[in-house]
Amino acid sequence: MTERSPLSDAPPRYTYNFCAGPATLPRPVAERIREEFLAHAEDGASIVEVSHKGPRFTGVLDTVETLYRDLCGLPADHHLFFMHGGARMQCSAVPLNLIGRSAARTAGYVETGLFAQQAFREGARYGDMRTVASSAATAFDRIPAVRPQDCPEGAAFIHLTSNNTVYGTRWTDFPQDVPAPLVADATSDILSRRIDHTRFGVVYAGFMKNLGPSGMALVTVRDDLVGHALPSTPRLLDYAVHARTRSLDNTPNTFALFVLSLMLEWVRDQGGLAAVERTNEAKAALLYGELDRSAFFRPTARPEHRSVTNIVFRLADESRTGEFVALAESEGFLGLRGHRTVGGVRASVYNGMPEDGVRALAGFLREFERLRG
Amino acid sequence: MTERSPLSDAPPRYTYNFCAGPATLPRPVAERIREEFLAHAEDGASIVEVSHKGPRFTGVLDTVETLYRDLCGLPADHHLFFMHGGARMQCSAVPLNLIGRSAARTAGYVETGLFAQQAFREGARYGDMRTVASSAATAFDRIPAVRPQDCPEGAAFIHLTSNNTVYGTRWTDFPQDVPAPLVADATSDILSRRIDHTRFGVVYAGFMKNLGPSGMALVTVRDDLVGHALPSTPRLLDYAVHARTRSLDNTPNTFALFVLSLMLEWVRDQGGLAAVERTNEAKAALLYGELDRSAFFRPTARPEHRSVTNIVFRLADESRTGEFVALAESEGFLGLRGHRTVGGVRASVYNGMPEDGVRALAGFLREFERLRG
Repeated sequence: MTERSPLSDAPPRYTYNFCAGPATLPRPVAERIREEFLAHAEDGASIVEVSHKGPRFTGVLDTVETLYRDLCGLPADHHLFFMHGGARMQCSAVPLNLIGRSAARTAGYVETGLFAQQAFREGARYGDMRTVASSAATAFDRIPAVRPQDCPEGAAFIHLTSNNTVYGTRWTDFPQDVPAPLVADATSDILSRRIDHTRFGVVYAGFMKNLGPSGMALVTVRDDLVGHALPSTPRLLDYAVHARTRSLDNTPNTFALFVLSLMLEWVRDQGGLAAVERTNEAKAALLYGELDRSAFFRPTARPEHRSVTNIVFRLADESRTGEFVALAESEGFLGLRGHRTVGGVRASVYNGMPEDGVRALAGFLREFERLRG
Repeated sequence: MTERSPLSDAPPRYTYNFCAGPATLPRPVAERIREEFLAHAEDGASIVEVSHKGPRFTGVLDTVETLYRDLCGLPADHHLFFMHGGARMQCSAVPLNLIGRSAARTAGYVETGLFAQQAFREGARYGDMRTVASSAATAFDRIPAVRPQDCPEGAAFIHLTSNNTVYGTRWTDFPQDVPAPLVADATSDILSRRIDHTRFGVVYAGFMKNLGPSGMALVTVRDDLVGHALPSTPRLLDYAVHARTRSLDNTPNTFALFVLSLMLEWVRDQGGLAAVERTNEAKAALLYGELDRSAFFRPTARPEHRSVTNIVFRLADESRTGEFVALAESEGFLGLRGHRTVGGVRASVYNGMPEDGVRALAGFLREFERLRG
C-alpha cells in the first residue's frame, strides 16, 4: 500500500483480520496448531497423520463431544454429528433427512438473506417448500415475524438462519408455537452466544467462523428426527448413518476436528459460553456505538436485529467506500469489504477477534472521519 | 513400552509412521505447514483464516490445478474437481452422476477388496449394479481378469479400485476393450505412480494418503460425462456444479488444498512423478526382498499384483503377530497392525515415507527374526 496513513507514515504495528469466513482464529488456538506441527519432528506424526480410529484422534473426538455438550447445554436426546461439506451440504441433507416425515412433502423457510435463499432453492428440489416470512421488501434490514398460521400444514420443518452474515442481522427471539420442528443454520453465530437447543429440531453450522477451518459442519439433531431419510440419500448425508457410527463411517476431516477441540477449550478457558457472549456483545456495542455517533457512517440493520458477529455499514457518501477500505487495509484492518452482492463495509467480529482489534478499528473510524471527513 | 528392545535398551532414535491413512507427510511438507502457522504472528492470517475468494487462496488453487495437470498429464478434456467427503462420498457421487447415461440403469464393479465392496454396496442403491470380476474366492490375493463379455450391456461405467489398501494388491494392466467408461478409486496410489488418464472416464481419490489431510477427494472427469446427474443429486455432489464453479460453489476445505499444493510442489521437486514412482518401486522392492528371503514372514499378495504402497504380510507363526507389532512400535515403527478385518501386518509406504524409514524397517525385520525367531 502506498496510500499515506491518516495516523502516521509507519506501517501498522498490528494486523487484524475482519474476514467474514474463513475467519481469524483466537491467537492461542493458532499457536497450538503451530505446536502440533512442531511436535511432528519428535514423534513422527502430527494429528493429521494418524488413524482416525486410534486413541490419539478418538481422544480429540471425546474432548469435542464432551465440551460441546457441556458448553452449549446440548440435551441428551440430541445427537451431535460432524459432516463433510459445510453448511451448504446441509441445505441438501436437511430436506433429504426430514421431508419424508411430511405426507405433503412440504416445509417452510424464512427468507432473511443470501444463505437463507440458497437453503430454500436447494430445499425446493426435494419438496413443496414455502416462504413463511421474508424481509426482502426492506433489503433484509430486519428479521421478519413468523406467524404460525403462515406455516404450511403438515410441514416437515421450518428453516431459519439465526445470523445473516451478508446483511448483518440476527434473531434474538426465535419463532414460538410453530407447528413443526425448527431448523437453524447457525453458521455465523454458533459458539458466539448461548443457544437453547431444546427449541430446535436441527441446528447446523459450517465450521469456518467460530468452530475452525472450512469443509465441515457440526449438526445437532433431535433423536426423533433421525431415521427418516429418503431412499436416494447418499450414505454420508444420512443422519442415521452418523448416529450409528459416531460420524466415523468414513474418515472425517481430522484437522478440522482437532481445531474444533482447541476452539472449545478456548471457550471453556474464557469462562464458558456466557462469558464469551458478554465479550462479543461488548465488542459489537463498541463498534455500533461509534457508527451511531457518527453521521459519516450508517449501519444498515435495524437496531433490534443487529448482528453481534457481522457489523454491516455504509459510508454516508458511498462513493468513498473504496477509499475507506483501501486505507483500512493499509492500516492493518483486513477483510472489511462488504459482500459482493451488497457492497458497503462489513466487520466480522467472531470469537477470534480480540477486543484490542475492535478498539483499534473504532479508533480508525474516528480518525478517518476526522482527517478525511 | 517396557518391552526390551532387540537392538538396545535405548529408546528409538527415529520414529517412522507406517499408518495406512491418514498417513505420514513428507518432512518438508510438514515443515511448511508449521511455517504457515508461524507466519500468523506477522500478518494476522494463516491460509485457513482468509477468504477462499481472495488472491492468496486462489493462488493456491492455481498452483494445484497447474501442477496436477502437468505432473499427471491430465488431458485438457478432463475436468479436475475438489469435492467434500473423501472417496466414500464418491461411492454415491459416481452413480448419481453417471447412472443416468444407462437406459437400463446398470454398471459393473470389480470386486478386489473392502473398499471395492463398499463402492458396490453404495452404488447398488442407485441402479442394477453387477460384479464383473472378483478375487473373493482367493481372499483377494490377486487382481482378477475383466472380460469385456462379462460387462453388462449398456453399462454406464465399470468401477475398479486401482490399489487395494487392505489386501495389498494393485492393478498394473487396466482392463482393455471394456464397453463403458472406466472409473477408478485411486485413493491409495494416486501420485505414487504415473497414471494414463486417457484410459479412464473418472478417477477419484481421497486426499488422506498421498494428497494431504482427510476430508476431501480429488476427482477427474472426462468432459462428456459431466451433466448427467440424477435430479435428486445434492448440489455439491453434481459434477456439473463443480465444472461451472471451479469447485468453489461453497467454501472448500482450504487447509487440505493448501497441503495438496505443498504435496504437488514436493513431487515436482523430486523430479516429477516418474522419479517418485521409481523411488516408490525401490522402497517396495527392499521390503518385499526382505520378506521373500525370510521363511519367518509371508507376503499375502501374488507377486505380479503386489501393491507398492501397502505391503501386507503375515508371520509364519501367526500367534506372534501381536508380539511383533508391539516390539516394532517400541522401536519407533508405528501403524504396522493389519486392517482389523484381516489381521496380520501392513506397512503403508506412501510418498511421505523416506527410504531411510523403509531401510530401518527392513533391518528390524532381520533383527526380529535373528533374535526372536
